[in-house]
Amino acid sequence: MSNKIVVVHKCLDSSSREAIEKAAVKYGCSVEFYVTEEEALPHLADADIIYGQGNALIAAAPNLKWFCSLTAGMEGYLTPGVVDPEKTLLSSSSGSYGVTISEHIIMVTLMLLRQQISYSEIVRSHTWVRDLPIRSIRDSRIVILGTGDLGSQAAERFTSFNPASITGVSRSGRSSEKAFDKVLPIGQLDEILPETDILVLCLPRTAETDDLLKGKLSLLPSHAILVNVGRGNILDEDELMKLLKEEKLGGAALDVFRQEPLPADSPLYNCPNLLITPHIAGNMTLGYTIRRNVELFLEDLDNYFAGKPLARQISWENGY
Amino acid sequence: MSNKIVVVHKCLDSSSREAIEKAAVKYGCSVEFYVTEEEALPHLADADIIYGQGNALIAAAPNLKWFCSLTAGMEGYLTPGVVDPEKTLLSSSSGSYGVTISEHIIMVTLMLLRQQISYSEIVRSHTWVRDLPIRSIRDSRIVILGTGDLGSQAAERFTSFNPASITGVSRSGRSSEKAFDKVLPIGQLDEILPETDILVLCLPRTAETDDLLKGKLSLLPSHAILVNVGRGNILDEDELMKLLKEEKLGGAALDVFRQEPLPADSPLYNCPNLLITPHIAGNMTLGYTIRRNVELFLEDLDNYFAGKPLARQISWENGY
Repeated sequence: MSNKIVVVHKCLDSSSREAIEKAAVKYGCSVEFYVTEEEALPHLADADIIYGQGNALIAAAPNLKWFCSLTAGMEGYLTPGVVDPEKTLLSSSSGSYGVTISEHIIMVTLMLLRQQISYSEIVRSHTWVRDLPIRSIRDSRIVILGTGDLGSQAAERFTSFNPASITGVSRSGRSSEKAFDKVLPIGQLDEILPETDILVLCLPRTAETDDLLKGKLSLLPSHAILVNVGRGNILDEDELMKLLKEEKLGGAALDVFRQEPLPADSPLYNCPNLLITPHIAGNMTLGYTIRRNVELFLEDLDNYFAGKPLARQISWENGY
Repeated sequence: MSNKIVVVHKCLDSSSREAIEKAAVKYGCSVEFYVTEEEALPHLADADIIYGQGNALIAAAPNLKWFCSLTAGMEGYLTPGVVDPEKTLLSSSSGSYGVTISEHIIMVTLMLLRQQISYSEIVRSHTWVRDLPIRSIRDSRIVILGTGDLGSQAAERFTSFNPASITGVSRSGRSSEKAFDKVLPIGQLDEILPETDILVLCLPRTAETDDLLKGKLSLLPSHAILVNVGRGNILDEDELMKLLKEEKLGGAALDVFRQEPLPADSPLYNCPNLLITPHIAGNMTLGYTIRRNVELFLEDLDNYFAGKPLARQISWENGY
């Protein structure tokens, strides 16, 4: 009873491909590699395991036993009818994006604190203006919503900048990560926000996180900055724009939006002190991310054939 | 014999001012505060100590015993005739800029590695392009020229990003800073450059650092990035532009230039993969820098009245 593994990956490097081939041999599996969804679709009828991204792959694989998504965010797969939980295991690649997303978080935080939006305009106009007030991570109170891979890797890097404090916020109010000075439960958000200088949002999209910050952004001090690398649905973009325009918030960096791609006529493009990036924080164009992502898949391949639970198996109850 | 202290400072906060006033009382000094050079100039004939910036202040103070510059870079004071070393002590504020400059270094390093110059153009044109190849500090070989306050604070922050290595390069090849994996003497530069992914220049301007990298940038690998926050005279800007245009260098971030302000018609403005900032890395618009700068002055005021050597006294031999 040989299993068929199908890998659908745009930018797999040769050493990662070889590692997957070697593991397939070890478990007596056949393995096929495709670069695009279109290429892969005709070959999925007898696929047992797919390592790729997107609902179409699942729909084309009636015998699928395990779908390992390249992504960390899994909300797209949890719509009823996409995956049959009785028949198919669903797992994420959570744990492979912390390095790249934490580097994005540090970069945009510093760009906001150091007025890089304005300095970029100054340089673009070939002028020499030097006296804009700037701020530092040093002595700032950092609050990170989400204490998983992204939040904890960001906290580790923030620590080296000597902030006043790094507070993690999680559903349980617990985390084993040492980089947080303390971890509080999400229910205390209203008390936490007024004491925040830098707010970082690293939460997955779930029923609980949708609109979590709606109506709450005005609880932040007017100098506070906000960074969102989780999902766009956590906040109200109109509310954010209003606060930025009225200078009731110091700045914001959004990598995720309610509607993606962000429409060309979105008013967000014209909002002051708003740094927009096109959902690139966790891009799999970084060699480290590709290799780590494959390592995690292979780790769960071992678990799968050992009959053990998958390390990154999605809980249908929690949604991540 | 009461001493007169004159403080010339654009953005002194009230608590720093009070701290200086308190120290003046302690040592039986009078103290006067001015915001601009123009305001201060008529009041310097009987000044014993000046804490400020610029040669004009020194020229207007014939009885000056000690000039404490607000800056870390001191090359402007070392031209013969500016300061009489027999009569006037000269000290810097080296040690107050490491926090802000190291944050600038990390920011621009990440902006270059993560293609932020291109992504900024993509967002400016309201388009949604996501697949540019990016790189990470993780596993990169970092080389920092200058192992003083700037270099060592940058190294401390870089460490949290898990680079492959952090090599300091100093005149002596020695440094007590633990953040460097190793420290090599500047004479080994030709062997070091080909093994460098990220090159950070934090050197003061001296006779030895002028043109130090001239003709050597092509020793760097073609993917390498370069960050200069020291002084512009260390490298040949035409050589740098040529390498960037021919894609023989991955990118560069310059905060300092041979000519400042950078002329509006400088070809540097049109060079690809070059991130320009208008000499702002060490701006004293950051509260932390202002307070730390004053603390260091007051520390040396204690040394001065205790008859001890100043901690940041300039060596006429080394030039820093």
